[in-house]
Amino acid sequence: MNSLTPFFTPRGIVVVGASSHPEKLGYGVARNLVQSGYTGAIHLVNPKGGEFFEHKMRKSLAEVPDPVDLAILVVPAKFAPDTMRACGERGIHAAILVSGGFRETGAEGAALENETLKIAQDYQIRMIGPNCIGLLDTHLPLDTTFLTPPMPRPGELAFISHSGAICAALIDWSREQGFSFSRLISLGNQADVSETDILPLVAEDEHSKVITMYLENIADGARFIEEARRVVAKKPVIALKVGRSKSGQRAAASHTGALAGAESAFDAAFEKAGVFRADTTEEMFDWARALAWSPLPRGRRVAILTNAGGPGVIAADALDHQDLKLADFSAETNAALTALLPPAASIRNPVDMLASASAEHYAESLRALLADPNVDAALVLLPAPPMYPAENAVDAMIPVIQASEKPTLVALMGSLQIAEASKRLQNARIPDYRFPERAASALARLAQRAEYLGEIEASAQPLISPDLTEIRAALSKVPSGIWLDPELVERLMCLYGIPTAPIKFAPDAKSASQLGEKLGFPVVMKIASPDISHKSDVDGILLNVESAEEVAEGFDLLVARVQAKRPRAKLEGVLIQRMIPQGQEVIVGAVRDPQFGALMMFGSGGVEVEGLKDVAFALAPLSEKEAQTMLSKTWAGKKLDGYRNLPPADKSALVDALRRLAQLAYDLPEIAEIEINPLTVLKEGVVAVDLRVKMR
Amino acid sequence: MNSLTPFFTPRGIVVVGASSHPEKLGYGVARNLVQSGYTGAIHLVNPKGGEFFEHKMRKSLAEVPDPVDLAILVVPAKFAPDTMRACGERGIHAAILVSGGFRETGAEGAALENETLKIAQDYQIRMIGPNCIGLLDTHLPLDTTFLTPPMPRPGELAFISHSGAICAALIDWSREQGFSFSRLISLGNQADVSETDILPLVAEDEHSKVITMYLENIADGARFIEEARRVVAKKPVIALKVGRSKSGQRAAASHTGALAGAESAFDAAFEKAGVFRADTTEEMFDWARALAWSPLPRGRRVAILTNAGGPGVIAADALDHQDLKLADFSAETNAALTALLPPAASIRNPVDMLASASAEHYAESLRALLADPNVDAALVLLPAPPMYPAENAVDAMIPVIQASEKPTLVALMGSLQIAEASKRLQNARIPDYRFPERAASALARLAQRAEYLGEIEASAQPLISPDLTEIRAALSKVPSGIWLDPELVERLMCLYGIPTAPIKFAPDAKSASQLGEKLGFPVVMKIASPDISHKSDVDGILLNVESAEEVAEGFDLLVARVQAKRPRAKLEGVLIQRMIPQGQEVIVGAVRDPQFGALMMFGSGGVEVEGLKDVAFALAPLSEKEAQTMLSKTWAGKKLDGYRNLPPADKSALVDALRRLAQLAYDLPEIAEIEINPLTVLKEGVVAVDLRVKMR
Repeated sequence: MNSLTPFFTPRGIVVVGASSHPEKLGYGVARNLVQSGYTGAIHLVNPKGGEFFEHKMRKSLAEVPDPVDLAILVVPAKFAPDTMRACGERGIHAAILVSGGFRETGAEGAALENETLKIAQDYQIRMIGPNCIGLLDTHLPLDTTFLTPPMPRPGELAFISHSGAICAALIDWSREQGFSFSRLISLGNQADVSETDILPLVAEDEHSKVITMYLENIADGARFIEEARRVVAKKPVIALKVGRSKSGQRAAASHTGALAGAESAFDAAFEKAGVFRADTTEEMFDWARALAWSPLPRGRRVAILTNAGGPGVIAADALDHQDLKLADFSAETNAALTALLPPAASIRNPVDMLASASAEHYAESLRALLADPNVDAALVLLPAPPMYPAENAVDAMIPVIQASEKPTLVALMGSLQIAEASKRLQNARIPDYRFPERAASALARLAQRAEYLGEIEASAQPLISPDLTEIRAALSKVPSGIWLDPELVERLMCLYGIPTAPIKFAPDAKSASQLGEKLGFPVVMKIASPDISHKSDVDGILLNVESAEEVAEGFDLLVARVQAKRPRAKLEGVLIQRMIPQGQEVIVGAVRDPQFGALMMFGSGGVEVEGLKDVAFALAPLSEKEAQTMLSKTWAGKKLDGYRNLPPADKSALVDALRRLAQLAYDLPEIAEIEINPLTVLKEGVVAVDLRVKMR
Repeated sequence: MNSLTPFFTPRGIVVVGASSHPEKLGYGVARNLVQSGYTGAIHLVNPKGGEFFEHKMRKSLAEVPDPVDLAILVVPAKFAPDTMRACGERGIHAAILVSGGFRETGAEGAALENETLKIAQDYQIRMIGPNCIGLLDTHLPLDTTFLTPPMPRPGELAFISHSGAICAALIDWSREQGFSFSRLISLGNQADVSETDILPLVAEDEHSKVITMYLENIADGARFIEEARRVVAKKPVIALKVGRSKSGQRAAASHTGALAGAESAFDAAFEKAGVFRADTTEEMFDWARALAWSPLPRGRRVAILTNAGGPGVIAADALDHQDLKLADFSAETNAALTALLPPAASIRNPVDMLASASAEHYAESLRALLADPNVDAALVLLPAPPMYPAENAVDAMIPVIQASEKPTLVALMGSLQIAEASKRLQNARIPDYRFPERAASALARLAQRAEYLGEIEASAQPLISPDLTEIRAALSKVPSGIWLDPELVERLMCLYGIPTAPIKFAPDAKSASQLGEKLGFPVVMKIASPDISHKSDVDGILLNVESAEEVAEGFDLLVARVQAKRPRAKLEGVLIQRMIPQGQEVIVGAVRDPQFGALMMFGSGGVEVEGLKDVAFALAPLSEKEAQTMLSKTWAGKKLDGYRNLPPADKSALVDALRRLAQLAYDLPEIAEIEINPLTVLKEGVVAVDLRVKMR
């Protein structure tokens, strides 16, 4: 059994600190528990004794009889350690510490929190809180909070929250928004139980169709991604992650570091896990209702049905904005609409039935549209019809919508005149919105969810698993925070199969020839002299040297030429490098994110990378699809297919190199930053031309 | 007197087509007019006669007695021409043609519309519609629509709409949103009166504090900008412009053309006029309420006051997203808050008073914050307090908010528990929102409005007004749709003082010398021969030629060198061009927008301009500030200040050139497109290196 199970299926609950004074939190908690309809045993503890709602107050935890699986603690912070110990002695393994006065108040409170946690761990007690409002399950039912009644009605949306105040506000807000909660958990300071711990347990709940989360931070990023990914394969998860403004920029040792704000890592983490990231609370619940109630579309082709032009134009704009498409109807649909509607109606998408549209027009047109194989979803716009109540149209459409395997979302535009219609749609579990823009946003998430489920991938298999013993030993000798020397960088890249073009030094013709063989022809040779800075001024460069013999001859030729021009310069030998053909130059980098590990960057390189900001991020390791997605998000990636005079370059070699570098960054957490700028993408293959690797 | 005045201040109104059958539009119009409380004369016309709400129906317009300034026509389309003529004969000069069945139904309807308009013009009748729902003024009061009663209560927001259905939906929606309308006008097909005509009239209305507009298109862009600019200097205007998805891309003869979608022109037009462009209907009215009710802030420093951490974090994110700043409080404020609030409260911004915050805490903390000279505005977050009704906190704060010259916006988070508080704020004309994100968005518009009023400019004075006679004559001989030849392009640029680097041909040493003098030294010389494509292969180029003598010598030298290498090549002479030093390369272009005229583009040039999309748009002519704003919106403009190894370049010369080119495009509408790619920005000055000009 999962150690967190008692939180949601306790056979008996005790409230420690229950109170009969209505202004105390312990009153609210006891009241809600008693009134919630919870069918297990309810025990109340208060040292002063007394009675509460026909329940006897017991003077201590020791007096509480079986069954009791869950304790709700509403005691002053200073009594928390002793109370937790008493829970342990009583054999309770799950506790919600509601009280505040801990870590959130400073060092003293933090010490008290640590002490309480230590005791809980000693007794194998799982703890939610402190500084939280607890949890509720509207279906069990169970309410451990002190929130103002009534408890929300049974719903389909689970909510996991780092903020108690947000829970309270949302419960109240939801009452007029037509949705409600299944399970709701306020996690408070998360001394023990975190969002990642609770997520799978909420996902198992059959009543929770969608999981929504309010997150201020994520402590263990890797585990969150792993758990969330598993959950998302079964149920949609939407997160509102706040605290963006605090994240700021990282210390900028590299372009990658400068560009990778902490939010890039959160975005990448949510993308990797398949979690939808909402920008606002309203957006989160706009999406959640649709995901909880609607079937998923097979594609992005949407039919708009309206009784007025203006709303139709707004809706068409909104679809476009959401990357949804206006469906092209089949001939059958056109014929059906022509037969149904007056001649002045527009039967092209958006279908404008005109203000005279009857309830039957709405229902029958919608039936025709949903039957069209070229239509994946419908968006119905219903400003109150001038001549009859909006609910008539809704009543006529509900059976049509429910009979279809395709989603229909409805924009009921107005307020008083559409209130009854809205209620009827909500009762039928058909998502309605006040404006087409918000309906379109929700519809887009349905399409995205369908696409996600269609493309779900197993976790990326490592592309390569080299033996890291030697390189680890070598890296361990490097002081932290410094840039690795080129030889070690070279060894790293070689180990992971990332092609480079190192510059080697040859003191004589023979070793130059050998180097040439090793590097691969053609090569470039340049005179090596501390006295010569502009090598081309002294004819000190040979391009396109094609063989070992030519290298040997070239060595002598270079030395002779330069000696002729600069007789007094000290010539040490030549530098030799594989000749890199023309290609497209990109930047590839990695930085270590404290929560999520290796964060990869790809984009337009060069010195202006920070100005152009044509970059994309993803977390290592990378699947082939993830690497390709990074390419498709940037102009640097798009132009690899060729652009005007620019010939196409080897995308698959780049994807391979990106994945190898991600594997390297993932395998070696002792590395803080890697940047290849540029990586040249050739007609065939890639070459890392300029490389930097920094230790943690 | 403005010819549109009778629409809003008629001494008498006649409804032609009034009906006593409740299912007819003519019933609704007559009912609303009678019930609206309109105090002028009301006349009803129906050929069948009868009575309606104690008003006698007259059988014809001719029978209607004085006074009658405005006719509302609810007659079948085919009778519209005759009815309009009857209005003219009766001496009426303002008519609202409510009926549909005109241009929106096809060619036949369009002909009927034209015929009706022609008659109206002959009789000097101004006409609103057809195919509209008319107008209302909640203060006069006057209601010419057929919308379901009640008429909206008197409000402060004017609304001008291209869609009647949107008017109807918004009126209903507004009833539960806490705001209402002052004047509302549905314009229908705009056969005569357009949004631009009506705008100044609405702006004159003392009850209308803010003007909101739903626009599907703008027929006369230049006049709209001119009128809107005048209005915006006095009152805020917010537009929701729809039809984005239809706009598509222009024909792409140049990069500028390919990048300048029609929406760029609308964005530029709204920016030039100072009109706020909203993305959604909700956003428009979120902004409008704040702009109608709140004083403007002096800056962007905001204090957040909350009773819980979570909402505070959401609000801080939202401020950041809106480019607003968290205020740093003065020592006095810190002291005041410390004295007021419990020790565990956070007195740093966001000020978190904790869940125990009383109504007095809210009021007194807010008083301290608004008194702080480092605070420009306050954002109060009020999820329902756990221990007392939210309206108590609101009642305590209202006098504090009303006594301050600084704006305070309130996020009341919830629904039932904050309903009463919301009502009280609305009655006090203090904008409230359900979520901090939306309040922050509105607050940002207040700051933007204050900045706009602080920087208002007179219309840009022409930088240059050359005599266009000769160039016009020359251009008139060029066939449309073709690219101008280089000589003519050169003349154009010369006329407007835009520095170029033309390539000139010299057949002999003497003319080469003269050309060099004319172009300015140093120059580049290249051999001119139809037989030689790679001039550098035959030593056919001379760089940095510094004087007329050197040019003459250079001519002979080039000819001799090339003759030696290619004795059989035909040598025609040399090409000579001013030597362009290194600089930063940008693109500058102009395309002609059908609504708004010359649309200027500036940004990162080169061949990748369409991929990088680092460009900004603005409408010609350009003031200095407008040109500078274009620079500041792009990386190409920002890096002119210097970046890493890149030295700074001459921004003011670029601004000057941009303005000159804008003037050229503005003065010469016969030009369809201009593109300079690249324009090189030097340490001092600029040079148009590659130039193309296309005729319309």
